Amino acid sequence: MQITILGGGGFLGRKLAARLAREGSLGGEAISGLTLFDLHAPPAMEAPFPVRCLGGDVADPEQVAAAIPDGTRVVVHLAAVVSAQAEADYELGMRVNLHGTLAVIEACRRLATPPRVVFTSSVASFGGGQEARLEDDARQLPGNSYGAEKAAAELLLQDASRRGMLDAVSLRLPTVIVRPGRPNKAASSFVSAILREPLLGLPTELPVPEEFAVWICSPRRAVDWFLHAMAMDTAPLGLDRGINPPGRSATVGKMLSALESVAGPEARALVKPVPDAAVEAIVGGWPASFTAERARRLLGFSEQESLEEIIQGFIEDDLAATRAERGL
Amino acid sequence: MQITILGGGGFLGRKLAARLAREGSLGGEAISGLTLFDLHAPPAMEAPFPVRCLGGDVADPEQVAAAIPDGTRVVVHLAAVVSAQAEADYELGMRVNLHGTLAVIEACRRLATPPRVVFTSSVASFGGGQEARLEDDARQLPGNSYGAEKAAAELLLQDASRRGMLDAVSLRLPTVIVRPGRPNKAASSFVSAILREPLLGLPTELPVPEEFAVWICSPRRAVDWFLHAMAMDTAPLGLDRGINPPGRSATVGKMLSALESVAGPEARALVKPVPDAAVEAIVGGWPASFTAERARRLLGFSEQESLEEIIQGFIEDDLAATRAERGL
Repeated sequence: MQITILGGGGFLGRKLAARLAREGSLGGEAISGLTLFDLHAPPAMEAPFPVRCLGGDVADPEQVAAAIPDGTRVVVHLAAVVSAQAEADYELGMRVNLHGTLAVIEACRRLATPPRVVFTSSVASFGGGQEARLEDDARQLPGNSYGAEKAAAELLLQDASRRGMLDAVSLRLPTVIVRPGRPNKAASSFVSAILREPLLGLPTELPVPEEFAVWICSPRRAVDWFLHAMAMDTAPLGLDRGINPPGRSATVGKMLSALESVAGPEARALVKPVPDAAVEAIVGGWPASFTAERARRLLGFSEQESLEEIIQGFIEDDLAATRAERGL
Repeated sequence: MQITILGGGGFLGRKLAARLAREGSLGGEAISGLTLFDLHAPPAMEAPFPVRCLGGDVADPEQVAAAIPDGTRVVVHLAAVVSAQAEADYELGMRVNLHGTLAVIEACRRLATPPRVVFTSSVASFGGGQEARLEDDARQLPGNSYGAEKAAAELLLQDASRRGMLDAVSLRLPTVIVRPGRPNKAASSFVSAILREPLLGLPTELPVPEEFAVWICSPRRAVDWFLHAMAMDTAPLGLDRGINPPGRSATVGKMLSALESVAGPEARALVKPVPDAAVEAIVGGWPASFTAERARRLLGFSEQESLEEIIQGFIEDDLAATRAERGL
């Protein structure tokens, strides 16, 4: 089976590719090839199957079509401009997040067999804020351009699925913690930074109060969800291709307590409260909790680990590489 | 005040233009000019202000920009490919319904002052079917491409409003009856045909059972709603620019009874039941009722007339012209 990961050079794309290389198969079927596509060609990787690494523009239909050759059975579409960047640069956000998805639909509908498309939508496509605990049929009323583009893309993928052009599963990802590497332009970047930076021995700033709650998931679980979505039976989804997977609602204070229990009070002491109204204006609109009943009971998506296990997972999987990448 | 109507050559566009010409002002301010834009240039019309009639492609950003010159205060975006046609021709539906709206956003954001944009979305952007009575915060889960394109366009207009590029009001129009002219490619075309054709003395077919309920509005009320949306204070809308206006839920049987009471049993006898599964598959997914509380109580949109008054309105406003157009 041929697989393509768009955004294959990003943090989750690389983790998913490594997992596919380790397993060699998906849903009991051997993987015959993997294409990794990103703005810059992802680095070559070891795998028991051929891996093509392509650089290109996800909003360019021809380049996307080249990344999704005939015979592709699964496309994982992770390519995106993140929340604060899409807010700062409207054209770029629309180009990548909306027109990029349109290019994916165009490429997929040309294949002889409609491929599975796993699309990463986002908690940012909802409103509701701190008080919210959203049901599975909650309306998406985004308060930011990233969320609007993701919600619009979901609608178009859903329609393309209904028409039999492709077979989409849209996962509205929680804020993923702990992200490796450097702080990025996502408004939610601080949620990882308050755990990652202290583990690197570096100071960092907390732009929201400790009572602030965030709907989170771990990178390990996100990759588990991708693998599940890539191979699952989509018949139970019917028309509704949008899934709120079972994240975890946690306050920043609880995350910092977990940090302290894993890495000691000196780690926690590196986190300094510096309120940032611009960040809080964006992430404050995102819902802090979902019921996620459909994903849990009907669709079999796996639950989160504890906060301590999530931090331990970062230490095991990503701390050394992050140190090396940042020359620490 | 300069006004542009995209889709100004269509049935509702012409009625709105005629009403603006009759009133000469909007919201207490004199109209200084009107641009009518459609695939073919709409015919010239009498008005107390200059009227430009342009033909062009609503998906072409330059042509749309030419139709929305600087100084435009209100854009009414009615240009669309209707439901059954968007279902039959995916490319055309996407081009006009999605990319057309993107071109409108691009044109509006270049203006010095962000214009009001009144966008016609549709009941077809919802699912739910015959049993539904949808609340104002109901999720849009369209079962047809037309509805998906409209819902996606709403999200993008909403985001552009939030960013201050324009000031959108999206009206999810019910099925408008009685449409003048000929049957068209909307799946809901029969809802008008079962009233219009008998009034013209012509036989027609009813593709659904008499118990089938439809969420409808009259052309007179649709034009009232446009005028209200063109001039209303949008502050109470907040982020949520989508409005379910107060249509009326009516069964086909009640419509036929109203026809009989206005035009006699010989008119009703011209309607022959001929079940059509393809039509029922599309319109059967649309919700038959909405609460429309926000539009009614908070926003001041006007209520429907009775079914008899709606039929009488067609006789007064459109029957003679329809006869002439069709050579009857």
